[in-house]
Amino acid sequence: MPDSNEQRFATVGLVGRTGSPHVVDSVVAVEGVLARAGVRVVLEADTARMLPERRHATAPRADLGNQCDLIVVVGGDGSILGVARDLAHSGVLVVGVNRGGLGFLADVSPEQIEHKIGAVLAGEYTVDERFLLEARIERDGETMERSAALNDVVVHAAPASRMMDFALYVDGEFVYEQRSDGVIVSTPTGSTAYALSAGGPIMHPGLDAIVIVPMFPHTLTSRPLVVRGSAEIRIVAGGLAAGPRVSCDSQVDYTIRPGDALHIAKSPHALHLAYPMDHGFFESCRSKLDWASRLGNG
Amino acid sequence: MPDSNEQRFATVGLVGRTGSPHVVDSVVAVEGVLARAGVRVVLEADTARMLPERRHATAPRADLGNQCDLIVVVGGDGSILGVARDLAHSGVLVVGVNRGGLGFLADVSPEQIEHKIGAVLAGEYTVDERFLLEARIERDGETMERSAALNDVVVHAAPASRMMDFALYVDGEFVYEQRSDGVIVSTPTGSTAYALSAGGPIMHPGLDAIVIVPMFPHTLTSRPLVVRGSAEIRIVAGGLAAGPRVSCDSQVDYTIRPGDALHIAKSPHALHLAYPMDHGFFESCRSKLDWASRLGNG
Amino acid sequence: MPDSNEQRFATVGLVGRTGSPHVVDSVVAVEGVLARAGVRVVLEADTARMLPERRHATAPRADLGNQCDLIVVVGGDGSILGVARDLAHSGVLVVGVNRGGLGFLADVSPEQIEHKIGAVLAGEYTVDERFLLEARIERDGETMERSAALNDVVVHAAPASRMMDFALYVDGEFVYEQRSDGVIVSTPTGSTAYALSAGGPIMHPGLDAIVIVPMFPHTLTSRPLVVRGSAEIRIVAGGLAAGPRVSCDSQVDYTIRPGDALHIAKSPHALHLAYPMDHGFFESCRSKLDWASRLGNG
Amino acid sequence: MPDSNEQRFATVGLVGRTGSPHVVDSVVAVEGVLARAGVRVVLEADTARMLPERRHATAPRADLGNQCDLIVVVGGDGSILGVARDLAHSGVLVVGVNRGGLGFLADVSPEQIEHKIGAVLAGEYTVDERFLLEARIERDGETMERSAALNDVVVHAAPASRMMDFALYVDGEFVYEQRSDGVIVSTPTGSTAYALSAGGPIMHPGLDAIVIVPMFPHTLTSRPLVVRGSAEIRIVAGGLAAGPRVSCDSQVDYTIRPGDALHIAKSPHALHLAYPMDHGFFESCRSKLDWASRLGNG
Repeated sequence: MPDSNEQRFATVGLVGRTGSPHVVDSVVAVEGVLARAGVRVVLEADTARMLPERRHATAPRADLGNQCDLIVVVGGDGSILGVARDLAHSGVLVVGVNRGGLGFLADVSPEQIEHKIGAVLAGEYTVDERFLLEARIERDGETMERSAALNDVVVHAAPASRMMDFALYVDGEFVYEQRSDGVIVSTPTGSTAYALSAGGPIMHPGLDAIVIVPMFPHTLTSRPLVVRGSAEIRIVAGGLAAGPRVSCDSQVDYTIRPGDALHIAKSPHALHLAYPMDHGFFESCRSKLDWASRLGNG
Repeated sequence: MPDSNEQRFATVGLVGRTGSPHVVDSVVAVEGVLARAGVRVVLEADTARMLPERRHATAPRADLGNQCDLIVVVGGDGSILGVARDLAHSGVLVVGVNRGGLGFLADVSPEQIEHKIGAVLAGEYTVDERFLLEARIERDGETMERSAALNDVVVHAAPASRMMDFALYVDGEFVYEQRSDGVIVSTPTGSTAYALSAGGPIMHPGLDAIVIVPMFPHTLTSRPLVVRGSAEIRIVAGGLAAGPRVSCDSQVDYTIRPGDALHIAKSPHALHLAYPMDHGFFESCRSKLDWASRLGNG
Repeated sequence: MPDSNEQRFATVGLVGRTGSPHVVDSVVAVEGVLARAGVRVVLEADTARMLPERRHATAPRADLGNQCDLIVVVGGDGSILGVARDLAHSGVLVVGVNRGGLGFLADVSPEQIEHKIGAVLAGEYTVDERFLLEARIERDGETMERSAALNDVVVHAAPASRMMDFALYVDGEFVYEQRSDGVIVSTPTGSTAYALSAGGPIMHPGLDAIVIVPMFPHTLTSRPLVVRGSAEIRIVAGGLAAGPRVSCDSQVDYTIRPGDALHIAKSPHALHLAYPMDHGFFESCRSKLDWASRLGNG
Repeated sequence: MPDSNEQRFATVGLVGRTGSPHVVDSVVAVEGVLARAGVRVVLEADTARMLPERRHATAPRADLGNQCDLIVVVGGDGSILGVARDLAHSGVLVVGVNRGGLGFLADVSPEQIEHKIGAVLAGEYTVDERFLLEARIERDGETMERSAALNDVVVHAAPASRMMDFALYVDGEFVYEQRSDGVIVSTPTGSTAYALSAGGPIMHPGLDAIVIVPMFPHTLTSRPLVVRGSAEIRIVAGGLAAGPRVSCDSQVDYTIRPGDALHIAKSPHALHLAYPMDHGFFESCRSKLDWASRLGNG
């Protein structure tokens, strides 16, 4: 049951996925709802450039968290991933509008904008806290790169070799050395995305856990491994093949070298995701994973 | 492309799944099409009893193969399994009408009866030959039981133990000893049924092969194994647990003892299945396995 | 690193798996270590009957928890499962001796008895708390049966039907209706046992989570689902097939009827398992799951 | 049972994997056995350069097939893959010596060289015919590239995108459009290599079939698909991501463009592989896949 939240929103940020006319229509529709509700609107600068006319203040994405009480993201689950990595540290509340169909994260379809964004503005929503991972690449004792991920951190072999080896440690304890195409380290949020394709389990968003999914391991007994959300995961690249890559949410990429250590742990920041009214995780699963269809032939 | 088959049908048998009013409606609809086409109709005795009035000759199921040139089976894939085991030896042509939706085997839906059964009677169909397995249980050198299977022969642990052990041989060569819930030996026809749920591959119906799928094996590296259609498979029950069961198409069941040998090989008889016109195996897969749906969230 | 525990043991219970001469040898060896350490020994009554002579007090299993500070179980992981269900409520500390090889739970091999049981008596051990599940079968609003499980609660179709349907709810939220061979609800402890054979993930023993693993589901998109340890799971048997069975740790069995509700939740009691010295969960995995072996052929 | 083959070998080629001192030792050992047997030896030119002194004729690899009756390959399964692609068209018999352990293809370990290569020279061996695939990349109606593969042809997404889409056709029939990391098309020989890591079934080497294994498909119901060995497979790259790559046996690589068609079919040439004496496929599986190990914990 959604709570009727006391908090009302004074300033609402608006972010749209660039490059699609459908998104523009939805951004304009959201703008209308916000304007009619009398809240101040701040457009992300890139989003503002997509619109035919400018009626609102704009700000670079990085500043939206400080200026706004709520951010509406129009695009899809992928757009939410980007906003989460960039703005989760600000603690701002985020709600997602999908381009079509429903997403696991972006739960408002274009035709529901009036109704559901209105409901959020009226305080009718629930808040899901989704934790992020922080990935840190260390070389010779120095931190080279650092990035957050809402879905997953993936280490994968360079295309020329299509195979890599690495050693895995959890909370300092050696787990295994593995030869494989790579490894996926996923949050519960990411467990219905890439990790699921790779044979990982579905994890309820409320679970405080991380799953480590091997990608085509040469050791057939290697299986997805679920550890505590507080676990410190360390992956040390072996010498088999040059140039494995680390990617966060499939949106940020780094190349690593043999001996580099990738540290993955829960980020101190979480995404605060607003779901208008009657959302349920298992309902999303039933719809998006088509849990109602069945085999016949027998 | 369907051929225009020269053969025309003088006598057509009609078999309906017992126990459902929907089936009765479809049986009556098929009767009508057959009558208007001027062919002689022979009703299976049990099917005749479901109908309000009798206008046709009846025969026990076992005699239908000899009396008929074509048998129309109304019910679903499960009904075709039974007819295949009972009548494949006669070589009679079979076409299936499904109660609703489409099956992999029963390809005519109730609303297509007029059109598609008419097409078959007019010679517009293709014939798929689906091989059956023959399972033979041997104890102390003597054959105890024998049954055919169109989908699969399954050996599964008795419920009290929920675990069994057995040794597997293919063409006389020892494959492995296994501790598991049991094992599925499936034809290509059965590969989209129970074996698929158990992690087996989809095998094209035209493939001359048998797949052996372990059920929850204690040895994690045990995987589905595809062997030639001509392979002779022998499964010898171990001493771990009393009372494993052997079932054919989930419709015929035997209890075996430690030391019993189950011999499985291709039956000399095949089911001749008529598909009206524009059927394609992969089209069935796309429809029944929902190959168009996709994950989102990223 | 094992702590040097202040607690010393005054009375130690001794339980052996019945029916194997190897177990008798190990029980006698443990007896010797305990006697030389000067602790009082209480033999489980059934275990005492296996021994050639009686030198110690005996007690029925149910009383051991109250009389003892530590219980040594000789047999294997299966023996620990039984002791856990029977004695976890007492909070007594348990250590396991395996018949051969190592278990995930019974970590002391026969040749290590002197060394490792001695270490435990000297206070050199770590304690793992393993939570149990409590399964409760409800019919027409009344509780019919109740049992604990350390590994898993399994609902599986009766052998005659080999298929069942049920509805699953987590914390009151509807998850799905499913047609399958059954479902496994497993603790982290059980995740390396039957649930692993069925495709479930490995869960670290320290994780506060439960995994729900469908058994050969007809819906191919149904995957293992990991939920919080505090989740209340309800499984309602459908009308498809009479007589599904519920089993706890494969050792306790009940038959249920359509409409019966199976409630599964974390038990208030946990097994306190002593590991002598240098035990690590991932070390057990590497050894028992053979994580060092690799595919070749390429 | 190995036949005693009438054919004796006049000229034997010798190929060693470059870059390992262990291989040099084994090449020298094979040289000795061949010399003592009085057969003419032709060293592959690259292999000759690894040896301290030259006592034999040399030839480029491409000419070995014409000059020799038998080729001994020292290195491992990977070395056999290369020789198969380069020399299968000549029909020459090949036998493999492994660097250590046993391979599925290279069945002679270093310490067995004297015994087993001697046996082959004496005519004591069986011959396995392993078919190859031929991959042909077509752009705008023209063939751009062509390569053989003994294990597999793999289409995989470029690293920047980590996702691709393609349409699959078998014998001209549309199978599906898929979004995934790529797809593996494997022979029975390759079914115990990369395809097995990706969830494909094990196919007996004698089976005339090809398996198509999707790599992390977004459609969860997409499963490995086994088709006839004579099937013509066509994969058409979609427009989602630039630069998918096609690789043969992980040793030969091409980049393709949206719209390119990859045609895969059985090559007219097969590798003729000699197994000394008592080889069995399932014995290799038991040894290399560790089919004797078992889960415990229950």
